Amino acid sequence: MDRAASFGAFTYHGGALEVARRLMPDAPKPWIDLSTGVNPHAYPLPDLEPEAWLRLPESGALAKLEAVAAQRYGVDPACTVAGPGSQALIQALSRLLPHGTVGALGPTYGGFAAAFAAAGAHVIEAGRLDALDALDVGIVVNPNNPDGRITPRGALVDLHRRLAERGGILVVDEAFADFDAEAESLARALPRRAAVVLRSFGKAYGLAGLRLGFALASPDIAPSLRAALGPWPVSGPAIAIGAKALADSDWLKAARARLSEEAARLDALLRGAGGRIIGGTCLFRLAGRSDALADFEQLLSAGILARPFADAPARLRFGIPPDENAWERLALALRG
Amino acid sequence: MDRAASFGAFTYHGGALEVARRLMPDAPKPWIDLSTGVNPHAYPLPDLEPEAWLRLPESGALAKLEAVAAQRYGVDPACTVAGPGSQALIQALSRLLPHGTVGALGPTYGGFAAAFAAAGAHVIEAGRLDALDALDVGIVVNPNNPDGRITPRGALVDLHRRLAERGGILVVDEAFADFDAEAESLARALPRRAAVVLRSFGKAYGLAGLRLGFALASPDIAPSLRAALGPWPVSGPAIAIGAKALADSDWLKAARARLSEEAARLDALLRGAGGRIIGGTCLFRLAGRSDALADFEQLLSAGILARPFADAPARLRFGIPPDENAWERLALALRG
Repeated sequence: MDRAASFGAFTYHGGALEVARRLMPDAPKPWIDLSTGVNPHAYPLPDLEPEAWLRLPESGALAKLEAVAAQRYGVDPACTVAGPGSQALIQALSRLLPHGTVGALGPTYGGFAAAFAAAGAHVIEAGRLDALDALDVGIVVNPNNPDGRITPRGALVDLHRRLAERGGILVVDEAFADFDAEAESLARALPRRAAVVLRSFGKAYGLAGLRLGFALASPDIAPSLRAALGPWPVSGPAIAIGAKALADSDWLKAARARLSEEAARLDALLRGAGGRIIGGTCLFRLAGRSDALADFEQLLSAGILARPFADAPARLRFGIPPDENAWERLALALRG
Repeated sequence: MDRAASFGAFTYHGGALEVARRLMPDAPKPWIDLSTGVNPHAYPLPDLEPEAWLRLPESGALAKLEAVAAQRYGVDPACTVAGPGSQALIQALSRLLPHGTVGALGPTYGGFAAAFAAAGAHVIEAGRLDALDALDVGIVVNPNNPDGRITPRGALVDLHRRLAERGGILVVDEAFADFDAEAESLARALPRRAAVVLRSFGKAYGLAGLRLGFALASPDIAPSLRAALGPWPVSGPAIAIGAKALADSDWLKAARARLSEEAARLDALLRGAGGRIIGGTCLFRLAGRSDALADFEQLLSAGILARPFADAPARLRFGIPPDENAWERLALALRG
C-alpha cells in the first residue's frame, strides 16, 4: 500500500470508504467508518408523503422548517436560512461575503479555506483568536474540529465587536455544538449585523446523506444569503425529515446522554490502548498516538477507517462506533 | 378573492398549491396541480440503501452519477456537473460567470433574471436571438418555457460563436428537452469553451422534490463550477435514484410515447373548450384564452391550479393531468 497516496485520499475529508475498500480488499467486513463526526445513531426515518419526492417544495414548507429550526437553535426565523448542507452554505457565503483576507482559527476543518480560496479570497490560518481582528471575514469553528477546543461565547462576542467595527464579519461554525458546549453557542446571542452561525443537521441527527444545514445570519446578511440560494434550496425529504427531527426534544436529550457516555467509553478504550486524548466532542475524539500513520494502517487492515491528518502525523481522530460489534473490533484492532 | 394578490402569488412560480388551498378552502379535493411542467408519471422510487441517508455521499458515487448522466446527455463526464436542482446551478452560475449585462431570449422562465439580478448583473430581456450577441452572458431556454419555442441547434452554434468571439458566454437551459426537440440539443455539440447547457432531472423524471440537475459545461467552466458547488453538492438519495433512472432508457422511451399522446390529448381538450394552443412541450401546453384570469379563477374554484402569467393576461399554461380522474375534472371545469 502506497502510504503517501492513501494518506492524501484520507486526509482531504473523512468518509473515503471507497478508497479504503480498494486499498484493503481483504480487510474484514463490514467496514467500520470512524473517519467522520456523524452521529452513528441516526434519527429514525419517518414515512414520507409521496409529495415530498414528486413536487417542488413549497415556500411555506421551507418557511415552516426554518421556523422549527429557529426554535431549536434559539433565533429569529427571519435569520434562519436552510441550505443543502452546511458546506453548501459555506460555498454560498464564500461568494457572497466581502472578498479580501479571510482566516480561520486553526488548525481546523479545511472546508472554509477551500471554498473561500476558490472564490478568490486570500486565506490565512490564524493561530490565535485576536489574529482574526484585522480580517474581512474571521472564522471560528466552535467546538473546534478536530480537537474540540471551545471558544467561550464572551470571547466570540468581543471578537465580533472588534471585527464589525472595522467592517469585518464573524462566521462561527457550530457543526458540533448540538451535544457539546451549548452554553457557548453564539446563536442565542446572534449579533444584529455582520455575523453568521452555521449549524449542521446531518452530523447531529446522523443523516449526512440528506444534505441539510442552517445559517443563522444577522439581518444584514440573511436576505442576501437567501437570495443567493434561490428558491427550492432544500429537498422535499430534507424538509419533511428536518421539520420532524428538529422539533423532537426527547430524541435530542436521549442522544446527548447516550453520546456523552459513548465518548467517555471511547476515551477509555483509546487510553487503554496507549493513546493520549487531546480533545474532541461527543461525536469524535482526537487521540495522540506516537505513530499515528502506523496505527491508521493497522486499523485499515482490520476494516476500520479512522481519520488521519496530513499536518499532524501523531494524531488520529475517531468517530463513535455504531454498535457493540464495532466496539469489539476496534478494541481488538487497537491491541494490534 | 383578491385577484391581484392571488395573481402575484401564482405568477412568480408554479406550484403554489398552499396559496390555492388558502384562497379556495371549499374547492373539491384533492387539488390538481397543473401549474408546473413536472412529469406527472414519476420514475418509480427504488428501495434505498440506508447508507444513502446516513453517510456523506462519497466522491466516487457522485462521479458515477455524473458518468451516467454524461452518457444519457451525450457529453464528456468531465464536463458534467451535478447539482441540487438546475435552479441551484443557475444560482451558482450567476455568481461565477462574468458580472455585466446578462440577457435571456424572452419571454421565458424568470429564474435566470432573478438569480443574475441578485448577483449584481444588469439583466435585460431580448426579443430576438441576435440581441444576445453583445452581452456578457446570453441565455436561451430551449425548448422555451412557457411557449415551447424551439431555437435550432445551428442558430445556437452561430450565437455561441458570436458571443465567444467577444468573450461572452452562452447558457442554454434544456430543462424541457428530454421529450421534445432533442435533435436541437446543444449538449451533443457542446462547445469547447464559453458554454453551459442545463438539464433538469426532476422535471423529466417527475421527482422535483429530489433536487437534482446537471450543468454540461465547457472545459473552461466545468472545474470552477464544480469548485463553487463544493464537496457533497447532491444528496445520497438523489445520487442513488438519479444513477438508476438516468441509465433506464426503456423507461425514458415509454415516458416519451405516453407524454406525447397526452400532450396531444390536452391540446384537443383545450381547443374543445374554446382555447387556442400557442405552443408547449410534452410536459406543458400554453393556451390562448380570451380571459385567462377568469378561466384561472374558474379552474381554481374547481380545485385545479393552472399557471397564469402577470405579463400575459390572455394565456394559461397547463401541465399534463396525472390520472383519468384529473382529466375528467379538467374537462368538466373547462366547460364551466
